[in-house]
Amino acid sequence: MRGKVYIVGAGVGDPEYITLKAYRILGEAEAVVYDRLIPRGVLEYCNPSAELIYAGKAPGKHALSQDEINQLLYDLSRNHRVVVRLKGGDPLVFGRGEEECTYLLEKSVPCEVVPGITSFQSAAAKHLIPLAGRGLASAFTVATGVQSSSTKQRLGYKELAGIPGTLVFVMTASRASRIIDEVASVRGQGEYGAIIELIGEEGESAVCGPLRTLKIHAEKNGVRNPAILIIGRSVELGARYGWIKCM
Amino acid sequence: MRGKVYIVGAGVGDPEYITLKAYRILGEAEAVVYDRLIPRGVLEYCNPSAELIYAGKAPGKHALSQDEINQLLYDLSRNHRVVVRLKGGDPLVFGRGEEECTYLLEKSVPCEVVPGITSFQSAAAKHLIPLAGRGLASAFTVATGVQSSSTKQRLGYKELAGIPGTLVFVMTASRASRIIDEVASVRGQGEYGAIIELIGEEGESAVCGPLRTLKIHAEKNGVRNPAILIIGRSVELGARYGWIKCM
Repeated sequence: MRGKVYIVGAGVGDPEYITLKAYRILGEAEAVVYDRLIPRGVLEYCNPSAELIYAGKAPGKHALSQDEINQLLYDLSRNHRVVVRLKGGDPLVFGRGEEECTYLLEKSVPCEVVPGITSFQSAAAKHLIPLAGRGLASAFTVATGVQSSSTKQRLGYKELAGIPGTLVFVMTASRASRIIDEVASVRGQGEYGAIIELIGEEGESAVCGPLRTLKIHAEKNGVRNPAILIIGRSVELGARYGWIKCM
Repeated sequence: MRGKVYIVGAGVGDPEYITLKAYRILGEAEAVVYDRLIPRGVLEYCNPSAELIYAGKAPGKHALSQDEINQLLYDLSRNHRVVVRLKGGDPLVFGRGEEECTYLLEKSVPCEVVPGITSFQSAAAKHLIPLAGRGLASAFTVATGVQSSSTKQRLGYKELAGIPGTLVFVMTASRASRIIDEVASVRGQGEYGAIIELIGEEGESAVCGPLRTLKIHAEKNGVRNPAILIIGRSVELGARYGWIKCM
């Protein structure tokens, strides 16, 4: 028997942010390989007879390497009809979904990606921070707060700060203060930003304000992952009109 | 009676890309104000007794102005418990969801945004074009192909082309060829791009290749909205490894 593998985004935050398609496929799944950062409650959507395998990664602590996960998905596809690889957020937004899918397709295993709500969409909706729109920004840029060590893809925060429009940094906890500093050196201390921390977990909260006060807040209180940083005019308008609860 | 208004993203493409939350709320809705660009089939999720009101906008042809929509949502909230404002994609990504929600909140009408899968996420999943990830890009920028006439928010395509990482232009149909030209003048004609047209409609297709050939294709065949343009290393790798069907 040969199965199909679905690389599925579980969304972020609310377990109800998962797509209807992901929900249906989880109900049909015979095996589910899941990550650490999936919303609590999503595993309950799995078919009760599905084999559940944890492949989660804590920072610096990998339950399974990427090669092992690829191999595992292939092996599972040999004797399960529906195999789900369940990831937080969207598999193609810093999710490495393309690596897993390519590995499988090259071995002639059918593979499909199901998109998911990302951390910045979840935070935007919950705290009413528009990412882009008329009168706010005609573009937004999403960057990882943890820049890869590969110099080719490495972006300086100052370089990013020069991009017009909304800036979103994902998984920024430990570097929030440094990122704020570098962006402020380009956009000015009066530019507005918001930190949303513990996204999807108990204690999720947003603080916003001019970068100068945001930095003080981050250094005084720390920032707990999953966290994102959103910077730009939409945050300022949100603060001014009271959409967002600000410092 | 006072109701609550949900500003709901219907997703793009597959009607099953809608979130479980949106699906549940549509089932409870007493009134639904919907846009033109929602996936076919999504209206079938509405409670059969819900009042359905079309507010769609065709280019240059508005069924209802934004002010009229705001007022309508307010009026509906006066005598319906659950009112849904249903939009294509995500309400906070070029969706003006924040305007409607702010209007309502200022009038003390409870309002909540439910995020949705955007056109670029739908296209990425279907055609396996990663937006950002290890070894591909540590950032991606999403810009509207139709730049606002407000000079303050206006971005030149060349300026955007200088941003490292993946570039995504949404709703680009009529300007695809011009955008490709300007990006190529900065990134070179050998940079890869993909055009995905008729997203979510019959005939959805992706073409990709170096910008020089992509431009010829766009001029020869035209580009039909809803369409997006994705440019960057992830498209090149997708083409090289055969993820994407290319010219």
